[in-house]
Amino acid sequence: MKLSTLRRGGRDGTLVVVSRDLARCCEVGDIAATLQHALDRWDQLEPQLRAVSDQLNESSAGGGNLTGVTPFDPEHCAAPMPRAYQWVDGSAYVNHVELVRKARGATMPESFWTDPLVYQGGSDNLLGPRDDVPFPSEEFGIDLEAEVAIITGDTPMGTASVAADRYIRLLTIVNDWSLRNLIPGELAKGFGFYQSKPATSFAPVVVTPDELGAQWRDFRIHRPLVSHINNRLLGQPNAGVDMTFGFDRLLEHIARTRKLGAGTIVGSGTVSNYDRSQGSSCLAEVRTLEQIEHGAAQTAFLRFGDHVRIEMLDDSGRSIFGALDNRVVCST
Amino acid sequence: MKLSTLRRGGRDGTLVVVSRDLARCCEVGDIAATLQHALDRWDQLEPQLRAVSDQLNESSAGGGNLTGVTPFDPEHCAAPMPRAYQWVDGSAYVNHVELVRKARGATMPESFWTDPLVYQGGSDNLLGPRDDVPFPSEEFGIDLEAEVAIITGDTPMGTASVAADRYIRLLTIVNDWSLRNLIPGELAKGFGFYQSKPATSFAPVVVTPDELGAQWRDFRIHRPLVSHINNRLLGQPNAGVDMTFGFDRLLEHIARTRKLGAGTIVGSGTVSNYDRSQGSSCLAEVRTLEQIEHGAAQTAFLRFGDHVRIEMLDDSGRSIFGALDNRVVCST
Repeated sequence: MKLSTLRRGGRDGTLVVVSRDLARCCEVGDIAATLQHALDRWDQLEPQLRAVSDQLNESSAGGGNLTGVTPFDPEHCAAPMPRAYQWVDGSAYVNHVELVRKARGATMPESFWTDPLVYQGGSDNLLGPRDDVPFPSEEFGIDLEAEVAIITGDTPMGTASVAADRYIRLLTIVNDWSLRNLIPGELAKGFGFYQSKPATSFAPVVVTPDELGAQWRDFRIHRPLVSHINNRLLGQPNAGVDMTFGFDRLLEHIARTRKLGAGTIVGSGTVSNYDRSQGSSCLAEVRTLEQIEHGAAQTAFLRFGDHVRIEMLDDSGRSIFGALDNRVVCST
Repeated sequence: MKLSTLRRGGRDGTLVVVSRDLARCCEVGDIAATLQHALDRWDQLEPQLRAVSDQLNESSAGGGNLTGVTPFDPEHCAAPMPRAYQWVDGSAYVNHVELVRKARGATMPESFWTDPLVYQGGSDNLLGPRDDVPFPSEEFGIDLEAEVAIITGDTPMGTASVAADRYIRLLTIVNDWSLRNLIPGELAKGFGFYQSKPATSFAPVVVTPDELGAQWRDFRIHRPLVSHINNRLLGQPNAGVDMTFGFDRLLEHIARTRKLGAGTIVGSGTVSNYDRSQGSSCLAEVRTLEQIEHGAAQTAFLRFGDHVRIEMLDDSGRSIFGALDNRVVCST
């Protein structure tokens, strides 16, 4: 099942079921007005949403007997949850962390291979797949971070990784925008990121894990995540490769001292492969590789007007979640 | 105006207007079902809520012509927002930070006096004033942190401190529970708090700034914040004294690279005065003072079964926000 949120209908948008080929969508206001509402009562509402999804996918044209079927246009999408109660982001591709540290001459503690790294992100304002993304200054070092993410149901405190299966409701892809030049100062203060992690952008569509078939296994999404800047390929590392901690381990880590509310979004951190021929999912990694190879970074961070496109295709070349295609703009 | 959220009515509870003396409350479902809903349309709904508040306060007994007036019982309260879209906590009493650092022999950067320290907290599960507070282990070093907090309306990115006035809707007090023994490990990883900052507890009542009269000035609440553990006074430092950054400065800091959604909760950090005769708002500070004075901490962290009570009284001795009175319990 594929779901999306259209921008109309208030702060939390309007939930629609989307056809597998992303061509059409169907209103489901009589089942759940918003995605948060659906997640709040998932056990009860998921079968009803799935019935709509089945009908929408079976009928090739108008959606059969369904009413409220319209062409699906990502331009009209908000984030799946335009505001959410929790967004927590991991850094699960540890080779990426190791690389960034190497560039600044720092070793990485061995524990980073066994103890997941996560940070609490802001979730009160999540951006849609085509929204302009405003920043106060190019001097802040604007960067993308292409990631995969899960959305959970209610998850008890103390949930073990072996039970993670029960709580993962949806999968998607995100761009965790980062302000690189603000990070060193913030991390030096010891309390983690805040200003350096502004609002995050989301793909138009979220999908239930079964939509990915065998490409969702070991709590990882085994497909390349493709990033372009101004139509130029930046990278297509495989999100299922070199992910040190699967989402089962991330879930266990974040539920250790708290329960998680339905609609908690958990990010993987920047997708990164040891195989550098696959390119990168952020400019910081590109710059780090340049520094290691040439002694200095050559690639600039993003500038106002730049477009960042992130997408994941299935093995037939069809878009799974639709594309994020956001333009970086000045906020002032 | 004083507002509260009763536990009944679903995940987000039910909004009520509370009388100034905290004796009675009135249902306002025809105006706003939840506090988030009221904050989402504050300009439109605040006058209607205030009309109810005026009637409730004017009538000494049954609430005059109001219907749905009942005795107000904090036992029935959820957090004002049982889940919120943003909870961000400052550390605005810099003397506290300086003290804690001194105890471990570390100096504090000069910039800490001019650049606010904040962290992004989890907001998907906020606890009510009488809820039991579950933790997996006493070994984690369970501590309270008594704080004051504001709740904002929609706040644009780039809001300056001089404009903060326009965006502060409500005031309250909170207990930002901390797991002290998990903090050093998490901060060493560089990404800030996560497991060490479990769910936060809230007072039964939130109030508009005018309820405090002159005790709300310079974006600080000028009243002692009184904390007890098992009926024994821990401290009563004045929240208006030694608060290095007022909420105007905290708001400017957190809105620098993002806009803030209506219902953003901003905490002050542990209230702390240079005048040590006022006691402390957390055990970590008590232990730090013991370490400086005696070479070792003597006071233990909290144990399962302990009760923590936090309250703020006006200059006539009446409770402003009602009391938090939470019991620490084992989650397993």
